[in-house]
Amino acid sequence: MPRTIGVIGAGQLARMMIPAAVELGLEIRVLAEGEGMSAALAAVQVGDYRDRETVLAFAETVDVITFDHEHVPQEILRELVDRGVPVHPGPDALLYAQDKLLMREKLSELGLPVPDWARVESIEQLDDFIAEHGGRAVVKTPRGGYDGKGVRVVAHGREVAEWFTALAEDGRGGALLVEELVEFRRELAQLVARRPSGDIAAWPVVETVQVGGVCSEVIAPAPHSAGKLADVAADIALTIADGLGVTGVLAVELFETTDDRLLVNELAMRPHNSGHWSMDGATTGQFEQHLRAVLDLPLGATGSRDDWSVMVNILGGPAEGALADRYDAAFAAHPTVKVHNYGKDPRPGRKVGHVTAGGDDLDDVVYEARATAAIFQD
Amino acid sequence: MPRTIGVIGAGQLARMMIPAAVELGLEIRVLAEGEGMSAALAAVQVGDYRDRETVLAFAETVDVITFDHEHVPQEILRELVDRGVPVHPGPDALLYAQDKLLMREKLSELGLPVPDWARVESIEQLDDFIAEHGGRAVVKTPRGGYDGKGVRVVAHGREVAEWFTALAEDGRGGALLVEELVEFRRELAQLVARRPSGDIAAWPVVETVQVGGVCSEVIAPAPHSAGKLADVAADIALTIADGLGVTGVLAVELFETTDDRLLVNELAMRPHNSGHWSMDGATTGQFEQHLRAVLDLPLGATGSRDDWSVMVNILGGPAEGALADRYDAAFAAHPTVKVHNYGKDPRPGRKVGHVTAGGDDLDDVVYEARATAAIFQD
Repeated sequence: MPRTIGVIGAGQLARMMIPAAVELGLEIRVLAEGEGMSAALAAVQVGDYRDRETVLAFAETVDVITFDHEHVPQEILRELVDRGVPVHPGPDALLYAQDKLLMREKLSELGLPVPDWARVESIEQLDDFIAEHGGRAVVKTPRGGYDGKGVRVVAHGREVAEWFTALAEDGRGGALLVEELVEFRRELAQLVARRPSGDIAAWPVVETVQVGGVCSEVIAPAPHSAGKLADVAADIALTIADGLGVTGVLAVELFETTDDRLLVNELAMRPHNSGHWSMDGATTGQFEQHLRAVLDLPLGATGSRDDWSVMVNILGGPAEGALADRYDAAFAAHPTVKVHNYGKDPRPGRKVGHVTAGGDDLDDVVYEARATAAIFQD
Repeated sequence: MPRTIGVIGAGQLARMMIPAAVELGLEIRVLAEGEGMSAALAAVQVGDYRDRETVLAFAETVDVITFDHEHVPQEILRELVDRGVPVHPGPDALLYAQDKLLMREKLSELGLPVPDWARVESIEQLDDFIAEHGGRAVVKTPRGGYDGKGVRVVAHGREVAEWFTALAEDGRGGALLVEELVEFRRELAQLVARRPSGDIAAWPVVETVQVGGVCSEVIAPAPHSAGKLADVAADIALTIADGLGVTGVLAVELFETTDDRLLVNELAMRPHNSGHWSMDGATTGQFEQHLRAVLDLPLGATGSRDDWSVMVNILGGPAEGALADRYDAAFAAHPTVKVHNYGKDPRPGRKVGHVTAGGDDLDDVVYEARATAAIFQD
């Protein structure tokens, strides 16, 4: 059986694949952007994921390629596939995680619920869309955005004039994506895993809380999601996973609108912050599941282990010192909470770890998780 | 805060500390007996743990020393302590795990329930003990035994004549330990963790099933242990941990006699096979807890996450190929069972992995765990 998984990218997602791999007797090799990355404790090769030779050479040392991020260029991914390297998710699927315009087109084609959107190539086109949608809209650069970067709410096309200028200079005839500003009650995320042979497993839908475009907190399952909401969310994600041919973990970020619709916001084709709770709160965590999926092994059960799980990100970390300097205080006050430390240097706004609490009283669980995370943040 | 833990020995116990360390942002360094050991994916130095220079040099690279086994010589441990290296458990405690005669003396002194025992220096003394205890007894070499090695049930002293000869040749004036053959209903194990500052946490008492002197199966909690039995078992282990000054995880193997007494059989001062269920079945697994304890951090909660957890060892492994070759069959049939693969080559009788199932119906859980383990064994 193939047993060596090559991960391109060495952030916390690659790092958290390591414990799952150790337990299953699998080996992780990482292509890291630089020294001292989060996953540097696996076998690491340092190199540029945009460099063809580097990636091809790395692929020779592993049985299957997967990812910590979605930024590897299509032409390199396609050459890997042509050479017979298993790549999961593959370039045909990753395309839709790499380009938000293509994603919107494809989801509309699949009949999935999305916000009103348009491809705009000029400030005038953008202003027309804004006028038709209540005077404000969300503009996104199709490529390269994450955690709120490359996303702006505008009332006038001129507010993103420099994005149009950059597109014109790029010379590839690009466009921006504009979407209606959705009035939503809350944000949800539906995580699924799909293996190449087609089997899919869905975790319970979760509620995600974003602060400044960055995920801050996740409640699993999403409150009041029993019944229809959970089914609709799972159906959407299963349809996307099948329709786009995603392999590995897929996260679908959703808006629950004030008029009770679910709309697809973003996709991530890899383990995702909205699924960190599953490491402690589900029978099979997303990192173990991702490894199973990319090796085309039968998927594990995705049920919750507790009535409620709450994950809170540690953003920034202590103003001075390291996360571990706070273990004494955090462990003493919160003996049931699981702490995950990404081994990164603290820096304002940076995701440096997360905590997960579980139990049968949601208020208690939310309190435990938030209070623990607070100890690690100044 | 100290963050680098040096583990002497590179078997599966060292290996299973790695995932816990990764999650907490800690570093494990291993002093391995040879290349290709189970824990070889941590930072590894190969060297002999009986060699003073090797161990002292290894200790310079870490913040605290702990163990995968109890065989490091006392004089080396004491030199480490004299040099100010934190060693957990320390030599004063480890002594009682290294020498079963000293252990029996100490436990008797602490007033703890143990089988009738004696120190015997000759076949005649042994025969006297046997005559006084119903014609049969258990003879143990005080040092070096594990998994049933160095333990023999005899009816005549002459059956262990070669052990006396070896003792005489050793020239250290040694003796053997003889114990009454306890009539027991079943075997139990009580796992606790103690940090240097004295705090102790106890997991639920478990039932262990041995086959040929090797642990085969563990049921957590031990059936019918609610109430007094659990309290007595925990009290015994807490008294031992305090009385012997153990730091880190301590496993106390117990006999439940046919006349309803609990007697202490063996001690292990490290994570133990009887505690593997806790990785998946308790809020804090024994490997995370051991790291907390040896770093003198507050201990985690030890409650069960399921009504029942059952751990079954994978002994020997597939006659041909590797454990991972059976993942397809095992994962497809048992999606809720957690599989742990130690990365060892299969060999008859060798512990190469374990599986843990959890749930609320003990019969189902036992079936799931046994059926999964069976897939990995020919």
